[in-house]
Formats: sequence, structure tokens, C-alpha cells
Amino acid sequence: MIRPLAVAMGDPAGVGPEIVAKAWQGRELHQLEPFFAVGNIRAIEAVWDGPVRVIGDPDEARGIFGEALPLLSVDDSSEVVPGVPDIPGARCALLSLELAVGLARSGAAGALVTAPVSKARLYDIGFTHPGQTEFVAERCGVSKDNAVMMLAGPTLRVVPITTHIPLAKVSETLSVELIVNKGHATARGLQRNFGIEKPRLAFAGFNPHAGESGAIGTEEIDCIQPAVEILRAEGIDATGPFAADTMFHPRARATFDAALCPYHDQALIPIKTLHFDEGVNITLGLPIVRTSPDHGTAFGIAGTDQAEPGAMIAAIRLAASAAGRRAKASASA
Amino acid sequence: MIRPLAVAMGDPAGVGPEIVAKAWQGRELHQLEPFFAVGNIRAIEAVWDGPVRVIGDPDEARGIFGEALPLLSVDDSSEVVPGVPDIPGARCALLSLELAVGLARSGAAGALVTAPVSKARLYDIGFTHPGQTEFVAERCGVSKDNAVMMLAGPTLRVVPITTHIPLAKVSETLSVELIVNKGHATARGLQRNFGIEKPRLAFAGFNPHAGESGAIGTEEIDCIQPAVEILRAEGIDATGPFAADTMFHPRARATFDAALCPYHDQALIPIKTLHFDEGVNITLGLPIVRTSPDHGTAFGIAGTDQAEPGAMIAAIRLAASAAGRRAKASASA
Repeated sequence: MIRPLAVAMGDPAGVGPEIVAKAWQGRELHQLEPFFAVGNIRAIEAVWDGPVRVIGDPDEARGIFGEALPLLSVDDSSEVVPGVPDIPGARCALLSLELAVGLARSGAAGALVTAPVSKARLYDIGFTHPGQTEFVAERCGVSKDNAVMMLAGPTLRVVPITTHIPLAKVSETLSVELIVNKGHATARGLQRNFGIEKPRLAFAGFNPHAGESGAIGTEEIDCIQPAVEILRAEGIDATGPFAADTMFHPRARATFDAALCPYHDQALIPIKTLHFDEGVNITLGLPIVRTSPDHGTAFGIAGTDQAEPGAMIAAIRLAASAAGRRAKASASA
Repeated sequence: MIRPLAVAMGDPAGVGPEIVAKAWQGRELHQLEPFFAVGNIRAIEAVWDGPVRVIGDPDEARGIFGEALPLLSVDDSSEVVPGVPDIPGARCALLSLELAVGLARSGAAGALVTAPVSKARLYDIGFTHPGQTEFVAERCGVSKDNAVMMLAGPTLRVVPITTHIPLAKVSETLSVELIVNKGHATARGLQRNFGIEKPRLAFAGFNPHAGESGAIGTEEIDCIQPAVEILRAEGIDATGPFAADTMFHPRARATFDAALCPYHDQALIPIKTLHFDEGVNITLGLPIVRTSPDHGTAFGIAGTDQAEPGAMIAAIRLAASAAGRRAKASASA
């Protein structure tokens, strides 16, 4: 049995509190493992009139979970207006994240799930990490280069090899070493978190038609093909580079466990096209399990009861199954 | 009533002959307008034992269509081995295309549908156009820059603003003028071929998250935004640039009639992810209607009865409906 999961509520003025509350409402339907929210209780009360119970220790969550949403309180002195982010809210989001990651790191929580934050608001309070992922990595003692973002949906998993950099800079950023490193982290992450013993990694090309043997660009020949060969020589089931546009229809998706794509949109377009309301971001390469719903704060609809909890529910389910697998593996080791 | 459609069979050793024959078999189920094949009868006979009738004039096709596949014969002296492309086959493909485009251009055929060819084999016989589209454009007296490729499926239409160039060259190739031109051709093409009176054009950004106001690249600010503003000032319903990864889920697709994407994979990934077996390539900006199934020769499965005719059927249906609309528009003009 895993310890209760810590769910950091993210920006209190975003949709985080609402989707956490709605996920709790769906606990029986979706057979969710016990979890507790971490954040300002006033953020929940502003958007939901269901039962909330403040806890002092994560272990209390299990007994309460059937009756009320357990909550570890952070900064309940600040007022919250849904849809109106402010500085105290950004501080609360950061404190919630810090507490939740600490609990997961210490083992007091079984895994970490994070609701969306506003990066712009976090930068306003002096946050210097590109996003939550890098902050979590640092708190776990992992270099941010080794923390790998995977997006997972019911029929597709993708890993962008580069993320938030201008597209014109991707070519010079790609290297054999970078691609091999992402391949290692992905293969290991599929084993540990998804229980896939012999993961099949498919690499996308960078250019149209994967470059047509160099006729339309050479990144495939210079970087991707050599990286795939190195991974194969190590015994990893790596294939490609493939023409990216033919990798994501149903028959093609059945041939791999994760697609590794040179740049952001190549990975994010297919997963969001197919699984917009149920995509989960899971960070590979950490000593803890960390997932989050693959959407933003959606300030525009916060407080209007329109937020769909599907991705949060999927994030909680994936965190629980990954944590369960890891606990079993370390018990049998 | 439109004249029978000319269907150029493409490379005789590819799946073209099989999907043309299978489309004819589905003529009643899919309510196909009369069409005739243009190519080597031996290519059909090698993969299909249904009825074929050689015609001397396109007008004969209508009377025959219910009983047999009408065929305008090209080069029936060459032997055909499915799956084994050769030089005579490439010549036959080119002659078939030339004849079919001529018939469409003269009005003897109602529209042009082209089955896949092997570009590599065509280059071997001295073909100097990048593909069939550019050849057709030239034969229609249209500059290849004004012939615009649109991929259309049941729930999505996309236009790549650049096509088969290295991804690292796209940034320098994009210009306000290029984007505005593609916007004009797309808007006009949606009106003429799809009967959409006031087309809604959505432009994708180039960088992740459409550049986040310049924080992740400036192509949006330099080119795409100004082009959208020019189109809007002309009264065209153009919007964007949008983050490409959030443009293709069902709710987002409902907000536009075509997505215009700066580069190949950005347009082709979503359409092939959603509509791999039914995507149609339609060339906008020509005086004739020209469509083709959005797949290749598939030499690997030619002659094994595995080829799916879905995309060819969709290409024939779209050609017929577009030609019908144009005929009606010019009759009422």
C-alpha cells in the first residue's frame, strides 16, 4: 500500500482548487488512491461547497478520504478571488509546491501531483526556475537536464527532446549526447513508472519526411541516426528516425511505447490532438514520482464550474500506479 | 452535371491501379460520380480481375461506368510487376498524368484526380518538377508559388505555408508576403471548392507556445502577426498566431475552416494523426480541380490486395463536389 499522495493545488486563483475538489468527488468512480490537497483552504471554499477537512499529518488522509477532502493548510490568511491572480497567491502556490515536494521526498507522501501555476506570477516573486519541473528536480538533487518531461495519454506517450526554446535554435541544440541521454531517461522511466520491461522507443526525424536521406536537411544523419545506433548497441529497442507525420495514426502508435521528438510542437501536437482533456505530464529521472495535468491555470474560467477534472484525475491515477510499481520493485529488490 | 473525372493511375507498380479499381467497386456505396482511369490496362489486370472497358473518349465513361471501369489506355505494351517500379512504368505514369491534366484543362474531364507516383523514378527519366503538383500547375499556366497544397479530412483542413525544405531554413523563408499570399489562396480555395462563403483562417505560430510574446522566438511578431493583420484589414476572417499544440483538439478545430501552418510537420502531423486513411490533397489556385489521396505508392504492399481505397474514394468525392460547385458558380455568374 502506498502512502497518500500529495496534490499541490497550484495557483489559488486558477482552476487547480476546482479540479482537485472534482477529482475527490470522482474518487469512487475512478477508484482513486487516497490523496490530500496542499494549499489555501479558502481557494477551495471559493469554488466548492463540498466537505474539506484540515489535517496535520499526511497519514491522517487515509481515514478521512472517504468522507471529506483532506487538506494540508498553507497560508489560509490570504483572500482568494478565482480568476484574479495576485502576489500572495503566487507565494501560496510556491509554498504549497515546496511543502508537497518535501513530503514526497521524505516518503511521507507516496507521490507528488502538481496543479497548474502561473509562471509569470512566480517570476514576479523572484522564482528563477523555468517551471515547476526544474524546481522539483532541484529539490530532489537532480540536475534539470536529467529531469525529462513525458506527456502520457491513453494511447500515446511522447517526450520532447528540446522544450521551450525558439524553433530556429533547435538544430544547433540537438546533439548525439543529448538524444542518447533522453533515450536513457525515457527507457528507464518506462520501466520504473509504467512497468514496461523492454521499452520500445521510436525517434522522430527533425525535417519533413525525416530528411529523405539528406535531401531535405541533415540533422537525421548528423545526430539522430547515430544516437539511435548507440542506444541499439546498448540493447535498447530504439528505432527511427521516422517521418514525424506518419508516426501518430493508430497503427503506427501501436508499434512503440514512447515517441521521442526533437522539438516541442512535434511531440505536443499529436498528444494534445488526441488526448487534450486527459494528458498527463510525468517527470522522468527523479527519485520521486511527479505528475501533473497537461494544461494551464485557465484563469479565464476559474470559479465558473467549467473546469474539466479529467486530466487531474488521470494525473492522480498515473502517480498512484507509478508509485505502487516503484514500491513493489524496491520491496522485491 | 459534371463531365466524368479523369483519374491518373500513377506508378503502375504502386498501389494506384488497385485503389482505382477498388474505388470503382465502391461506386454505389459511396455514390461516386462517373470517372475513368488513365493508364496501362496491364497494371489493373495484374492486381484485379474485375471488368475494365477501354474507351476512346471521356464522354463514353458515363454510359459504361455502371458495368465496368472505363479506362483511357496509355502505353499498354509494357509489362507491369506490382511492387517492382521500373523506367517504362515511370514513363507511363508521366504520360498518364499529362493526358489526364490535358483532358481536365480542356474541359473534356470534369476534374483531375492523381494516384501516387514515385518521385525518385520520375527524376530518373528527367522529370525536373518537385512533384506532380508543380507539373500540373505548369500545364495550367499557373506559377508553382500560387498553387497551394491543402490537406483535407473529415474534421480538419490544413495548409503548410512552406513544404519540402529543411526545417532550419523555414525561419528565413517565411515572409509577410508569403503568408499573405497563402492566406489569399486558401480563402479563395475554400470559397470555390468547398462553398464556404466567409472562410475562417487560423494561423499557427512558429515557435513553442507561439513564441510567448517574443520570449521564445520572434517569427510570430516579425511575420505572422503582421500578415494576419493585413488579411483582416482586407476583410478576411484570419486569426492567430496560436500555439500550434492547442489548435487541433475537437473544440479548437470547430473554430476554423483551415489551419495555416508555417512548416510541413506542423500541418501534416495533426491531419495524418486524425485522418490517416482518408486524407485528401487538394491543390488550390488552379483553373481546374485537382485532388489526390494523401499517401504514397506503397510499393511494399502493391499487388497483395492490402491497399485501402479510402483516401482515393475521398479524393474522387471531393473532386466531384468541388467541380460541381465551380460549374454551378460559373453557370450563375
